[in-house]
Amino acid sequence: MISSRIDQQVAFLTEADQLKLVDRATSLTDASRRENSAEHSWHVALYALILADQAHPEVDISRVIKMLLIHDLVEIDAGDAPIFGQHDTDKLAQEEAAAAVRIFGLLPPDQAYNLRQLWNEFEAATSPDAQFAKSMDRFQPPNQNLASGGGTWAEYNVTLDQIETRVGSKIERGAPALWHWLKPRIKSVLES
Amino acid sequence: MISSRIDQQVAFLTEADQLKLVDRATSLTDASRRENSAEHSWHVALYALILADQAHPEVDISRVIKMLLIHDLVEIDAGDAPIFGQHDTDKLAQEEAAAAVRIFGLLPPDQAYNLRQLWNEFEAATSPDAQFAKSMDRFQPPNQNLASGGGTWAEYNVTLDQIETRVGSKIERGAPALWHWLKPRIKSVLES
Repeated sequence: MISSRIDQQVAFLTEADQLKLVDRATSLTDASRRENSAEHSWHVALYALILADQAHPEVDISRVIKMLLIHDLVEIDAGDAPIFGQHDTDKLAQEEAAAAVRIFGLLPPDQAYNLRQLWNEFEAATSPDAQFAKSMDRFQPPNQNLASGGGTWAEYNVTLDQIETRVGSKIERGAPALWHWLKPRIKSVLES
Repeated sequence: MISSRIDQQVAFLTEADQLKLVDRATSLTDASRRENSAEHSWHVALYALILADQAHPEVDISRVIKMLLIHDLVEIDAGDAPIFGQHDTDKLAQEEAAAAVRIFGLLPPDQAYNLRQLWNEFEAATSPDAQFAKSMDRFQPPNQNLASGGGTWAEYNVTLDQIETRVGSKIERGAPALWHWLKPRIKSVLES
């Protein structure tokens, strides 16, 4: 019984390896290549650990970190949808929901249930933990772009208004001081 | 003052991006390429989350996950030392200690101190949290190799005795049932 539980857990962890093959729109800071969703997941979890002092007092940073470790696993089946790309939102949501059933379903039932709940909470973005997790997920890519002098903003013809709507609003909801810090820096790069 | 703290935190998080450029000896499960230390850090943190039921009751899994998120950052300066490779242990320890001073030193002093303490605890591997973290760090690579039918064991001419000494003993110390589960599976692949 114990060994069957470990079999299921390792099967899930081995499947998770495929997140390393999902490329994102954002580059590494040296612009040598795109980052993948596994690296991004590590990076945003580290962001939450370091920027914990920006979270509202009711936020549980350990839960936020766990949420961020699993937030992109559905991309193994559904792929990464670039934030400034065009996509059918309803279709994507259906694909991601099906991916969550399949991928978390590899785990023992108690863990499958708990992780699907945690992923649903992240997606809904209504709890303080999920809102801070979302703010980390949105704050990391612009910093990658700033470090590489603009990164993929030019490629997607992005304006400050678009960044404010799709990125800034999410950062501001969970961590207002970080958007206040970031906005003039983005403006300066876009205008240069 | 607030913005200066954020400046330091983002400088550290941007520096951390370079861990995505440090390749390890272990391949992805599809053997398409080596994995890098950022991906590995995400993967072992996920291992700790999923395999928490294998930890001794006194282990704090949230602390273990934080430890694993930062455990390899010193490799940005010191590189990855493959577990079955040859290296000067004293020289490597000096390089890693210097890297910890430089890299964690980018953070505000309170965070620099706390993360260096956490990294030192991981390296010392005497606390229950560190021992479980080490067991995750050693349990993930063999599973990558098993999934790819042997992976890099052949390349390093590794024997079961060597795996038992350098890997198995560390897994067993923090999570005995996982080594009990793993050993016959490694034996079977090495003998095939």
